[in-house]
Amino acid sequence: MSYKNFPMVPRVIFGRGSFNQLSDILTPKRLGINAPFIFLVDDVFKSNSWLTSRIPLSYEDIIIYISAAEEPKTDQIDILVEEIIVNSKERPSGIIGIGGGTLLDIAKAVSIMLTNEGKAEDYQGWDLVKNEAIYHVGIPTISGTGAEVSRTTVLTGPERKLGINSDFTPFDQVVLDSELTKDVPKNQWFYTGMDCYIHCIESLQGTYLNAFSQSYGDMALELCKEIFLGDDLTNIEAQEKLMMASWHGGMSIVYSQVGVAHAMSYGLSYLLGTKHGIGNCIVFNHLDEFYPEGVKLFKEMKVKHDILLPQGICTDLSDKEFDIMIDVALNLVPLWENALGKNWKKTITRKKLKLLYKKM
Amino acid sequence: MSYKNFPMVPRVIFGRGSFNQLSDILTPKRLGINAPFIFLVDDVFKSNSWLTSRIPLSYEDIIIYISAAEEPKTDQIDILVEEIIVNSKERPSGIIGIGGGTLLDIAKAVSIMLTNEGKAEDYQGWDLVKNEAIYHVGIPTISGTGAEVSRTTVLTGPERKLGINSDFTPFDQVVLDSELTKDVPKNQWFYTGMDCYIHCIESLQGTYLNAFSQSYGDMALELCKEIFLGDDLTNIEAQEKLMMASWHGGMSIVYSQVGVAHAMSYGLSYLLGTKHGIGNCIVFNHLDEFYPEGVKLFKEMKVKHDILLPQGICTDLSDKEFDIMIDVALNLVPLWENALGKNWKKTITRKKLKLLYKKM
Repeated sequence: MSYKNFPMVPRVIFGRGSFNQLSDILTPKRLGINAPFIFLVDDVFKSNSWLTSRIPLSYEDIIIYISAAEEPKTDQIDILVEEIIVNSKERPSGIIGIGGGTLLDIAKAVSIMLTNEGKAEDYQGWDLVKNEAIYHVGIPTISGTGAEVSRTTVLTGPERKLGINSDFTPFDQVVLDSELTKDVPKNQWFYTGMDCYIHCIESLQGTYLNAFSQSYGDMALELCKEIFLGDDLTNIEAQEKLMMASWHGGMSIVYSQVGVAHAMSYGLSYLLGTKHGIGNCIVFNHLDEFYPEGVKLFKEMKVKHDILLPQGICTDLSDKEFDIMIDVALNLVPLWENALGKNWKKTITRKKLKLLYKKM
Repeated sequence: MSYKNFPMVPRVIFGRGSFNQLSDILTPKRLGINAPFIFLVDDVFKSNSWLTSRIPLSYEDIIIYISAAEEPKTDQIDILVEEIIVNSKERPSGIIGIGGGTLLDIAKAVSIMLTNEGKAEDYQGWDLVKNEAIYHVGIPTISGTGAEVSRTTVLTGPERKLGINSDFTPFDQVVLDSELTKDVPKNQWFYTGMDCYIHCIESLQGTYLNAFSQSYGDMALELCKEIFLGDDLTNIEAQEKLMMASWHGGMSIVYSQVGVAHAMSYGLSYLLGTKHGIGNCIVFNHLDEFYPEGVKLFKEMKVKHDILLPQGICTDLSDKEFDIMIDVALNLVPLWENALGKNWKKTITRKKLKLLYKKM
């Protein structure tokens, strides 16, 4: 038996307002005046000077604003990397992702592709990356995805939606400043928070579970219950706790795996472009059979926060389209194995998945 | 306000039997055939071939057995470093500590002193280390101290008991194999486990508390309750969970601080050589005033496991000796500040500490 030697984020700063220390963090990492820091920032912050005026730009450093309206794509990464190489005099000193899971995943992928040849799609899978990525920093502005601690960056490629899973993927530095999450719209807050909640349920009920993952998963789950079902937290407390829940939920799955919701949600995302957070919610809502207790609590949270999920998103799909989604979902073998064990194919047939998708 | 940019252990492997993967972990880190790995191993394992036969020795690698009967000392580190330098053809490839908190702290200190001039006592304090330590690996064989994740190595020097706290102190790699803890004697298991429990109480009730430390502390505390007060765990489950509790308890204090029990226990240890785990228990037993709930539960755990603490260890001490202990304890300003706030001197007087010590 061989256990994974897991790479953890080697530096983390936690605290309200810690974003102000970014200059102190980056300065010692600058490789030269021609080696810029590239800030990849969610374009919702484009005219938000409260945030952008505090990004410490020097010499050739630049900000690139990126929309998170769509899930990150392999060709988007290739274009960004090309643009950075063409416009930088020297290899950048570092890539800093500021945003949600989409921006964090883009920052991770770009930092890998700056030191590895070929196209991003060549590295979708497990442990295909050969060279160390350049220094990269993750600064979440919304909580729940766990992208700040994970060893993956999930990309939609021409053939599949799949992560670049490697020891070089995790950030070298994470800044956890909950103040950056204060203006997240309510629906977005819920969907992304539920990504964390669903990680916990899938990890805790999975066959890959171990004491490491369980302790992180239990902790994140308790935090989610406090945040989404309790009434006792101030806004600031809730923001800080959700930031920690995301972190611990991410740690829980790095040493186990996600499950049914993520596998099926990847299918939705690949075909329809459904964003990850809302996609997980749409799927999880119909998974009573696999996660009865988890789905029950999820529905209570939905009611408590007046969340109306989109319905009928698969109503008008053709058989061919269903087949595409089912192919993407079935391709994620470790997720099914974690959820249902080695004999998962006895439970999960194409017909069964189609029936489930049809409900959504 | 300035938040600490905390260095985390960048690689961790968790799993029963993961010790067998040590060769795979170390091989890529070897700097050359004349640059040995030095294994510092608790001498309780000296004729234990179950463990020692699995230590992967090649080329010039050596095992140095070290007694953990006494707390680690600064001059002990200096002698070890001298011995390693004299006997190695080249600077070692790495230091691997295998044992409890004492061995782990010795491994951390030796790895620092191999690249920093002068004596170990010169570096007792906060952020005095100038050069990166050599590669060092921590492999706990007993759970509770949190030494596997902390950024300190606590040493008794000629003038004080105080840690070398630095960004270079944490291990580069930790192996969490709970099977290595299977033969720990019961009293030792309890005292060291209580180190973790006391970390949690001191962190969770401290004024330095934040959402980061709280989430780790809550998790470790729940695990301790399950392990020391529950009846439902198998031996293996209890060993695995205590290993995680130690880890999370350590994470909780790195972003906050310990408190009254640790401050006073350092005094006992400095004067009487009392080992850290049992010293904490002896002190904590009398701290109802500061941690009423925590002490109540501690006493329940003690009864449940038939633990009889030594009594009257301070009965025959002279005034001068009490003064020495009180000086050591009062010197630990951050611990008192965390426990009781900025105005801690209003509560904690020399007279008060003497009265408390006299009870022990």
